[in-house]
Amino acid sequence: MQAIGGVPMGQGVLAQQPFSQLLGSELTAWDAGHCTLELPLREALQQNNGFAHGGVVCYLADNAITFAGSGALQAPAVTSEFKVNYVRPAVGDRLIARAEAVAAGKTQAVCRCDVFAVKDGVERLCAVAQGTIVKVGA
Amino acid sequence: MQAIGGVPMGQGVLAQQPFSQLLGSELTAWDAGHCTLELPLREALQQNNGFAHGGVVCYLADNAITFAGSGALQAPAVTSEFKVNYVRPAVGDRLIARAEAVAAGKTQAVCRCDVFAVKDGVERLCAVAQGTIVKVGA
Amino acid sequence: MQAIGGVPMGQGVLAQQPFSQLLGSELTAWDAGHCTLELPLREALQQNNGFAHGGVVCYLADNAITFAGSGALQAPAVTSEFKVNYVRPAVGDRLIARAEAVAAGKTQAVCRCDVFAVKDGVERLCAVAQGTIVKVGA
Amino acid sequence: MQAIGGVPMGQGVLAQQPFSQLLGSELTAWDAGHCTLELPLREALQQNNGFAHGGVVCYLADNAITFAGSGALQAPAVTSEFKVNYVRPAVGDRLIARAEAVAAGKTQAVCRCDVFAVKDGVERLCAVAQGTIVKVGA
Repeated sequence: MQAIGGVPMGQGVLAQQPFSQLLGSELTAWDAGHCTLELPLREALQQNNGFAHGGVVCYLADNAITFAGSGALQAPAVTSEFKVNYVRPAVGDRLIARAEAVAAGKTQAVCRCDVFAVKDGVERLCAVAQGTIVKVGA
Repeated sequence: MQAIGGVPMGQGVLAQQPFSQLLGSELTAWDAGHCTLELPLREALQQNNGFAHGGVVCYLADNAITFAGSGALQAPAVTSEFKVNYVRPAVGDRLIARAEAVAAGKTQAVCRCDVFAVKDGVERLCAVAQGTIVKVGA
Repeated sequence: MQAIGGVPMGQGVLAQQPFSQLLGSELTAWDAGHCTLELPLREALQQNNGFAHGGVVCYLADNAITFAGSGALQAPAVTSEFKVNYVRPAVGDRLIARAEAVAAGKTQAVCRCDVFAVKDGVERLCAVAQGTIVKVGA
Repeated sequence: MQAIGGVPMGQGVLAQQPFSQLLGSELTAWDAGHCTLELPLREALQQNNGFAHGGVVCYLADNAITFAGSGALQAPAVTSEFKVNYVRPAVGDRLIARAEAVAAGKTQAVCRCDVFAVKDGVERLCAVAQGTIVKVGA
């Protein structure tokens, strides 16, 4: 079986997710246990105060941990559950979500993710997440 | 001060959130401690397998608990943190998120939310969430 | 196979958990998807301000959702992950944790729990929890 | 005001928590944003299969993030909410919980914690946690 991971394969998965296309996500790194997703911010992704909507931030964290967990499990996988703490308003030009698997068994992996907002070239942590990724069909 | 709640005020808040407009959310109930948000499903909200993307489901849960908590606090509020468990693929014509505040203090409320997917008129639970809503400026 | 549930079987499980014996937990209800655990409070279970320690509250919630999920799955099971929000200091003579399974598949169940502190015969909600219970060996 | 942190002050706080005394927790490091708690394992802390009870693990994580958050806030604080994922049975002679604050504002801090079980001198990750610590009186 083809190894799971790599930017071309990851971009291919995103291209098949209409919602990721609607938002404009880009996968910039993906190996066995790590994934980086980026999202250029624009007005359509904001809530009523000019920040990126929390739903945008949690979408990105959720998706990033799915990739990281799938890479760690080397199998197609979905997020079973996760938790997010918003720690700072997501203001800037771009979001970057960096996820890693901290543990992986046969059927599930536990992952963490840091989401940063990039403004004027400076990254600031805006959310942290933790969740469980489960192999499809497990 | 005007009481916080009611469908017209809630629809007005959603109208000011570009991301909620992009997705197409509708607020159908909002009082002091409860909120119902609905979201017609369409292809653009799907992931790669025909289900509504988890990011759509968690956006809706996040937004619904913010409204419920804001109603309970009778103040503008934001979600500070929340957790979601996906319990079944979100397949159907529409999502309905029903949130309620289970406790409220001076500056924060704890809320729960059930998200249902409606298919052929039948509601099926697809996610449950729990989180903390904090008064803006607290 | 013997059905999983009932107070005698549940008390038997608690009797085999040294930590539950150390704390003094009592199981007062257990069926396919619901469980009630109670814990008489005493000074040894407090933190430094006279409240029951958060660790006592989260132990009880964790254990109650394990029973509820195991009952729903009709199989031995463990808590895989959970989240707790403390909503009020746990002051009183007794804690009561009421858990229920809100969804169950073949290998895992998602459960919620309310923990109440009872003082002078009055129950007050002091914590809410939500988590995933997984069949042993799954 | 005296700075908050340091092993002597931390051990003093634990000494005032009857539940921490019952379990036998030891604070071995505490500065502005980090805390290490350790707990020698013994039969009384087990569940029915010889592992440390999940309630012991989540107590330790909860307590460790409270210290880390209190150090980051430089104020007395309590855990408002947290989430734990159990990733491996907690088997061994000792648990070590290492917590750090990943963000801190005026009234609350967001912390993470890794809990390791030590057996024959080898540390193995058995749980990860994430939660919110709130200043007392905020």
